[in-house]
Amino acid sequence: MREGLTILKVGGAVVENAESLQQLISDFAAIPGPKVLVHGGGRSATALATRMGIETHMIDGRRVTDDDMLQVVTMVYGGLVNKNIVAQLQAAGINALGLTGADMDIIRSHKRPGEWGWVGDVDRADGEHLATLLREGITPVIAPLTHDGEGHILNTNADTMAQTVACALAPYYEVCLQYHFEKRGVMRDPDDNSSLIPHITEQDFLRLKAEGIVSGGMLPKLENALHAIHQGVSQVRISETLITA
Amino acid sequence: MREGLTILKVGGAVVENAESLQQLISDFAAIPGPKVLVHGGGRSATALATRMGIETHMIDGRRVTDDDMLQVVTMVYGGLVNKNIVAQLQAAGINALGLTGADMDIIRSHKRPGEWGWVGDVDRADGEHLATLLREGITPVIAPLTHDGEGHILNTNADTMAQTVACALAPYYEVCLQYHFEKRGVMRDPDDNSSLIPHITEQDFLRLKAEGIVSGGMLPKLENALHAIHQGVSQVRISETLITA
Repeated sequence: MREGLTILKVGGAVVENAESLQQLISDFAAIPGPKVLVHGGGRSATALATRMGIETHMIDGRRVTDDDMLQVVTMVYGGLVNKNIVAQLQAAGINALGLTGADMDIIRSHKRPGEWGWVGDVDRADGEHLATLLREGITPVIAPLTHDGEGHILNTNADTMAQTVACALAPYYEVCLQYHFEKRGVMRDPDDNSSLIPHITEQDFLRLKAEGIVSGGMLPKLENALHAIHQGVSQVRISETLITA
Repeated sequence: MREGLTILKVGGAVVENAESLQQLISDFAAIPGPKVLVHGGGRSATALATRMGIETHMIDGRRVTDDDMLQVVTMVYGGLVNKNIVAQLQAAGINALGLTGADMDIIRSHKRPGEWGWVGDVDRADGEHLATLLREGITPVIAPLTHDGEGHILNTNADTMAQTVACALAPYYEVCLQYHFEKRGVMRDPDDNSSLIPHITEQDFLRLKAEGIVSGGMLPKLENALHAIHQGVSQVRISETLITA
């Protein structure tokens, strides 16, 4: 049986608050075996942009990235958030390495057509190189930035990057992809924490979708999760909800 | 005979201007064999600080780094400057990896005593790990940030980092350490470009120092260069001036 690998994706809210970041560092450091951390940082990016007098524009909850905003996210995601996590993981005894998709050409993307500016949709992740790092005892800490191979950094959705990395590593490890976010998990009633759905299979998903119980922002999350399962990822967790084939 | 390795240190002025950066990328990409790039970024840091309403304080030409300024340099050095160089080197066919001292615990430092704030003086670089990366065909691109092993990023002088990396790699390679800066090199008369001194040995240095020809900011540069030579670095270049034992 292949070795297990945990890929944890944490949103901005977790890494941007000193207290929850400290909790994350100790929780993540305690995960046994090889692991990868993928982080966001959107709130800090918006805060820096505001301080610099740069307006933030969103379409469908995603950041439009003009030249100025690309500088902001490159600084915040690739610098501030990433390097602070790396330094704190090192202090916790984890040999962390901060990466964007440009570093070692780990994740390549292409510029999304339309009004998005410097936003990248992922083409591929280099699973073999990431597996080599993991075998050397290194813990990759991945910022939501990629590159197009033509010298441009591209702002990229962290959920998608985590999923791409999970799929790219599935040939080498039994991958558990875990999305850590504010909610308890997938719920029948978003406002009722006791309505958590603990386990969703593909069949369950189709039924929940048809019944309208899963909708809105949770739909793409679950579709991404099932896509990862189809690509060989062993299991996906959305907070406490387990998604399997 | 051991393989040659070039370590190029470039100052902020080179990497912060789009045109000179493009020239640097193509010049650096053309260097044969394994290589390391160490960069600065001070002007961009000052510019961002100003835009954020943060005052820049210098002592003896070095940046005092309070909490706010640490955020600025972490963003600018570790994010903006570093990741743009990495993406452009990738486009030039160089498999670049952006690093701070915290990444893979490559360079450890301690907080300088006194009024400096989050400034680090280098303790050691991990030559073995850097050599492993180089053997894998990876080109490290190093930002002037280190860590103290206790979770703190520290702002660190890029000249010193380049010298430390050169010394740490001297057991593995014939190292040529090259400082690329605005002047032509070491000159008898700083205002006369034709007064370049093409070659300086340790004996020459002692004489030039006694005669007062070398003084001011050039003294520590040459002392660092000779220290590197004593630590096994084969040769040091300060722009066009070659320094050897």
